[in-house]
Amino acid sequence: MPENKIVLAFSGGLDTSVAVSWLKEKYGAEIVTLTIDLGMVDLEAIRQRALRVGAAKALTVDAKEALVKDFLFPALRAGAVYEEQYPLATALGRPLIARCLAEAAQAEGAFAVAHGCTGKGNDQVRLEVSMAALAPDIKVIAPIRDWGMSRQDEIDYAKERDLPISASDSRFSVDENLWGRSVEAGELEDPWLEPPEEAYVWTKPLAATPDEPTYLVVHFQQGAPTAIDGEEMAGVDLIVHLNGLAGGHGIGRVDHVENRLVGIKSREIYETPAAIVLHAAHKALEALTLSKEQARTKARVAQEYADMVYNGLWFTAHRQDLDAYVRSTQRYVTGDVRVRLHKATCTVVGRTATNSLYQYDLATYGREDTFDQAAAEGFISIYGLPVRTQSQAQPE
Amino acid sequence: MPENKIVLAFSGGLDTSVAVSWLKEKYGAEIVTLTIDLGMVDLEAIRQRALRVGAAKALTVDAKEALVKDFLFPALRAGAVYEEQYPLATALGRPLIARCLAEAAQAEGAFAVAHGCTGKGNDQVRLEVSMAALAPDIKVIAPIRDWGMSRQDEIDYAKERDLPISASDSRFSVDENLWGRSVEAGELEDPWLEPPEEAYVWTKPLAATPDEPTYLVVHFQQGAPTAIDGEEMAGVDLIVHLNGLAGGHGIGRVDHVENRLVGIKSREIYETPAAIVLHAAHKALEALTLSKEQARTKARVAQEYADMVYNGLWFTAHRQDLDAYVRSTQRYVTGDVRVRLHKATCTVVGRTATNSLYQYDLATYGREDTFDQAAAEGFISIYGLPVRTQSQAQPE
Amino acid sequence: MPENKIVLAFSGGLDTSVAVSWLKEKYGAEIVTLTIDLGMVDLEAIRQRALRVGAAKALTVDAKEALVKDFLFPALRAGAVYEEQYPLATALGRPLIARCLAEAAQAEGAFAVAHGCTGKGNDQVRLEVSMAALAPDIKVIAPIRDWGMSRQDEIDYAKERDLPISASDSRFSVDENLWGRSVEAGELEDPWLEPPEEAYVWTKPLAATPDEPTYLVVHFQQGAPTAIDGEEMAGVDLIVHLNGLAGGHGIGRVDHVENRLVGIKSREIYETPAAIVLHAAHKALEALTLSKEQARTKARVAQEYADMVYNGLWFTAHRQDLDAYVRSTQRYVTGDVRVRLHKATCTVVGRTATNSLYQYDLATYGREDTFDQAAAEGFISIYGLPVRTQSQAQPE
Amino acid sequence: MPENKIVLAFSGGLDTSVAVSWLKEKYGAEIVTLTIDLGMVDLEAIRQRALRVGAAKALTVDAKEALVKDFLFPALRAGAVYEEQYPLATALGRPLIARCLAEAAQAEGAFAVAHGCTGKGNDQVRLEVSMAALAPDIKVIAPIRDWGMSRQDEIDYAKERDLPISASDSRFSVDENLWGRSVEAGELEDPWLEPPEEAYVWTKPLAATPDEPTYLVVHFQQGAPTAIDGEEMAGVDLIVHLNGLAGGHGIGRVDHVENRLVGIKSREIYETPAAIVLHAAHKALEALTLSKEQARTKARVAQEYADMVYNGLWFTAHRQDLDAYVRSTQRYVTGDVRVRLHKATCTVVGRTATNSLYQYDLATYGREDTFDQAAAEGFISIYGLPVRTQSQAQPE
Repeated sequence: MPENKIVLAFSGGLDTSVAVSWLKEKYGAEIVTLTIDLGMVDLEAIRQRALRVGAAKALTVDAKEALVKDFLFPALRAGAVYEEQYPLATALGRPLIARCLAEAAQAEGAFAVAHGCTGKGNDQVRLEVSMAALAPDIKVIAPIRDWGMSRQDEIDYAKERDLPISASDSRFSVDENLWGRSVEAGELEDPWLEPPEEAYVWTKPLAATPDEPTYLVVHFQQGAPTAIDGEEMAGVDLIVHLNGLAGGHGIGRVDHVENRLVGIKSREIYETPAAIVLHAAHKALEALTLSKEQARTKARVAQEYADMVYNGLWFTAHRQDLDAYVRSTQRYVTGDVRVRLHKATCTVVGRTATNSLYQYDLATYGREDTFDQAAAEGFISIYGLPVRTQSQAQPE
Repeated sequence: MPENKIVLAFSGGLDTSVAVSWLKEKYGAEIVTLTIDLGMVDLEAIRQRALRVGAAKALTVDAKEALVKDFLFPALRAGAVYEEQYPLATALGRPLIARCLAEAAQAEGAFAVAHGCTGKGNDQVRLEVSMAALAPDIKVIAPIRDWGMSRQDEIDYAKERDLPISASDSRFSVDENLWGRSVEAGELEDPWLEPPEEAYVWTKPLAATPDEPTYLVVHFQQGAPTAIDGEEMAGVDLIVHLNGLAGGHGIGRVDHVENRLVGIKSREIYETPAAIVLHAAHKALEALTLSKEQARTKARVAQEYADMVYNGLWFTAHRQDLDAYVRSTQRYVTGDVRVRLHKATCTVVGRTATNSLYQYDLATYGREDTFDQAAAEGFISIYGLPVRTQSQAQPE
Repeated sequence: MPENKIVLAFSGGLDTSVAVSWLKEKYGAEIVTLTIDLGMVDLEAIRQRALRVGAAKALTVDAKEALVKDFLFPALRAGAVYEEQYPLATALGRPLIARCLAEAAQAEGAFAVAHGCTGKGNDQVRLEVSMAALAPDIKVIAPIRDWGMSRQDEIDYAKERDLPISASDSRFSVDENLWGRSVEAGELEDPWLEPPEEAYVWTKPLAATPDEPTYLVVHFQQGAPTAIDGEEMAGVDLIVHLNGLAGGHGIGRVDHVENRLVGIKSREIYETPAAIVLHAAHKALEALTLSKEQARTKARVAQEYADMVYNGLWFTAHRQDLDAYVRSTQRYVTGDVRVRLHKATCTVVGRTATNSLYQYDLATYGREDTFDQAAAEGFISIYGLPVRTQSQAQPE
Repeated sequence: MPENKIVLAFSGGLDTSVAVSWLKEKYGAEIVTLTIDLGMVDLEAIRQRALRVGAAKALTVDAKEALVKDFLFPALRAGAVYEEQYPLATALGRPLIARCLAEAAQAEGAFAVAHGCTGKGNDQVRLEVSMAALAPDIKVIAPIRDWGMSRQDEIDYAKERDLPISASDSRFSVDENLWGRSVEAGELEDPWLEPPEEAYVWTKPLAATPDEPTYLVVHFQQGAPTAIDGEEMAGVDLIVHLNGLAGGHGIGRVDHVENRLVGIKSREIYETPAAIVLHAAHKALEALTLSKEQARTKARVAQEYADMVYNGLWFTAHRQDLDAYVRSTQRYVTGDVRVRLHKATCTVVGRTATNSLYQYDLATYGREDTFDQAAAEGFISIYGLPVRTQSQAQPE
């Protein structure tokens, strides 16, 4: 019976393992698990676990390429960094997970999908709003939010049913995909305390980083990175490569008290080496290729775009409109950026663009100067006229 | 005769030294020089030089405290960083120089002031627009822009008149005040080349920085820093202290291709250690004390404020309006920020505020959690309603 | 027992009359009604009705002056018009009602307040969020939203208990205060249909308006109207006077499909004569007294301010910050505006300001012209430089 | 010799008639006049005059269709109204005139183009910046700005050379194209005076307008009007039709003190009937078809777009980017708007869209209501949470 199928987003952890049984019992439904690889996931191992904890069917999908092409690079072109700090890794993965869930539910004829998010985070909103956009007729079930079990309850529940769970013993709550790793909970909840080294996995502690810098040249084509040091690379490979390289130099740590979508502030730790390098390089290339007015408006759009993504509003007409704007700005964002990675610092040290707006002959103080200095007097006279007028009419 | 006096902003360099003679000859006027200390200036030495090159009178003023109180800290509270890169050192000093010039011209009964800016930079605009606001009846003369002498012409001119000039042999053009040091020209005009170490004076090269980090706690009172590690410090002292400390760790270098006010892009190098540390700490404290809406609007105001400062529009009603907004936002920006300085990196590692909006009991995933997760379902239902509606009415 | 008291916002209509009984029965509480005059309310009549339907105590408060001073004029100065159409009458009254409720509840020692809003409108949110800000410990009860009674159910309920209700037979749902009248429901819910004349009460149909125009001069002092035709008037009187005058000319009708706070669009009819006249006059005076940059930023703040008010966020630090900005902009918004009222049209025909930025000698094409046309060439050369550069470097 | 040709934008008035001779004498050049029809121009009559005053060749071009398609409708879709008052008629024509000039100059091999703008208006900037974008190598000459002749000087100059000029005796300075008519100078320069009826030509005085309203239905296709009352019309015809119809009802007058590009305020009178009707209708259709977030961002873009157009920055990458955004927003702006024209008032009385976001079943207070009121409580709880938190942590 199709009405009896639920597709559950399955990570293999304690929560979703227990959810398989719980959904089966509560809804009398067949559970189809769906595990999605957005980077660093062992699909086959998780698939086996899904079957062991009672899934009728265990689907997997490698969505890394879709993640890069449809979500990460558009966000990079947009300059989308939440609150100027967080390059939005998890937030960019959720709409893709929703898309995979919707497709699987439709293919399987399921009446509902289920996810393992809690009731106080952003991810429940991102997933459910994305589902509302993509498949408004499919019900969304949130067992963790509904059942009210504590961690110990879950373990007892699993034991009673003889479920082969192996609870993670990390004191942190972690999520990761190609674009970054999020860490929260535990002692991180005190924003006065410096995060302990154990919170970090992708990035080396400063003391362990090389004494010599690494220089690299990132090539962008219309706002998207396409090559490193002259070697063309597919998006997934390029990101994996940069995560390793920059993480090895200790680059990519973010420690931020952020405004969640659900009205609270939370302290979050992120590791996001490739994103840090690519955003810095992309911004430096835009400094050469966008006019001042373009840069000003794009900075505001970047803030709006980041909020839309963070707030789970990827699948909206508004996000598409912003994207149309962004794509137009990227027509000439093509060129090379030279970056130095060293001791937790990513520094842009050179940039060049095919259609650069930097004009040596206008900028130089040397002999080649073609700037018409005589024009300055007239310019200042008119430019300063309203200031002069106002200070006379409205002295204070 | 008062009509015969010109007050010249005098730095003691080749340009303004030659200008003393040139103005005297061209305008038949008495030249009063004014030298302003905005940080690291030897007022007495420059005063002596002014008299030697022909000034009738050589005035000096220590304006460091005014710089901090009336310009730097307001800009810090506003979060004013030009194009997200440059904390606006020179741009913040120019209006104060104009204010000092206007006051001196009025006190001396001069008909004009003169400055040594060229015709292609921002500073001519900043000075002249500020003068238009403060003293619209006083003429502004820009000898360097008007006379069309090359550097060699200036040296010849000085020799002919036996002026005791000692031309700097730096290949860079430099300006500095308490808040930062700007470096341009020479090989820096090729934005592909990494700046040479000689361009930097305030900040140590990474290899020469200590292996051990320095931790410090900055205390803010309503958005302005008032103490380091519990010790209250006057603004000038605090900034000097931080410039030394952070510069010693190699912190404070900025390498940016920026949009000048006069319609061109230029590559600028800045060293601004204290400003980098204070902006980072201030922003972290605001993350605790401003609501999400406050933070969003303030980020836009910061961009606008930075543009106003950069564009020479300090003495305008609009800048005052923005300031009224900023001051209102800072009522609760009081607290401590813990910062780690290490290997060219300034990292915020802890923050606490007297009136923090971060609420542990709402944020925690632990037992103390008071967040009402049951509310989430209703929230998502209404929050997602327009997305659901639009995706049904306007499928794509 | 204080725990047994509820303060109910009481309008005297069917809903709140039934609510008195219902709350008494459901909570076993003593009901204190509170009726607030925000314009055109017969407080004594409603007080009597409250006692007849079972209130233990019936409080009344004349809040008209507070409405004008603390809410309407600040919103006028801010230029707050929701979606460029709706001057926010009801939305401005709700936070004041919440303030009165909170004060009464505290004075009476009530554990809760109650209101008669439904579950799909904006007003429930405005009242409850305002209560959360002002008196977070007092519970808010929303009987209409909770009880699920239809209109007929309410009538039956009242009959059973012998409550002396007299249900309005209007086919529209109406709310009004000094600043405007809102009309919704009935045939207005079809946005293709022209609203019938019966929907309008404050404004005459065009055919019934005078053939001769009325001219009037509104005087503003720092952004607030203080006199009409030279006669000083208190705020409440001035608004009542203008509502009559402009309404008599058919001015003040608004027909708008708006975005509600709860995620839906609704079609609303407003009558708001005084607000239309005052906003038009105020804007015309600002055109004389604000610089271009002030006007640009204030237009954006006006949009944000209107959204904050509409969305029930009056009692927030962010609204206060915006207010600090607005007050600063209004320092010189002092002067006279001449307005013509005629055939449903309010037209500004003249404006003059004490500190006007309009300068005849700069603007005129006549002999008195003092504008320096020679400066234009230099201005255009530098102003157009980035356009020239970009069209050469990035031809399309 | 091609170096000896100048293409002069020729309107047939006194200024440009005198300019033919003056340019010939001053530059020893052959003068080719170019007259462009942007609406209501008698091309042949002006062509004859050009030859009579000494043009070597007199070109004409009918650019009405290009005006509508490439400039007016994009600006309409963008909602571009300068300072919320002026629909930008002249400002939209200038870049097209520049385009025609550039094309003619290239076809004729001219070394320069010339225009009749003064040195204190916006139009000189618009034309010269557009030329800098389109044909940076062609010189631009501004005789009126350069020659310093008064009106009487011009008349004397013409008499001396026996030029058949017939000076307009209007006391106003007028410009017009399909989208509107601009009037300035004379007594209009006193912003306190009501404009005299003679200033208006396209719009009837209220007393002379019909007593009966006209209703009409405008159909839009993706944001552009394509039919009136069911009859498809080409853009030029549709605008001409609406100008007559709405002007006959006295609709389209604008009286505004505006911020000019060159730093001064000026009082301008506009008549723009079709633009007023079409902007009102378009905005009403967008109220049905754009989400709240789309509407908010588009309102800001509209302000920016209007500024770009007013400021002569049509041919810029930034304007193109904004256009890409606007086009994306217009995908579903398709439907009908019913408008009533009566006594100088244009009122939207009905609107319907193919893909409307207005949902009767969500909006209605009647039986068909499908809105889930129970969700409101959870929504308000989370929506109000930050307000509650802040008012507790930061009481004032």
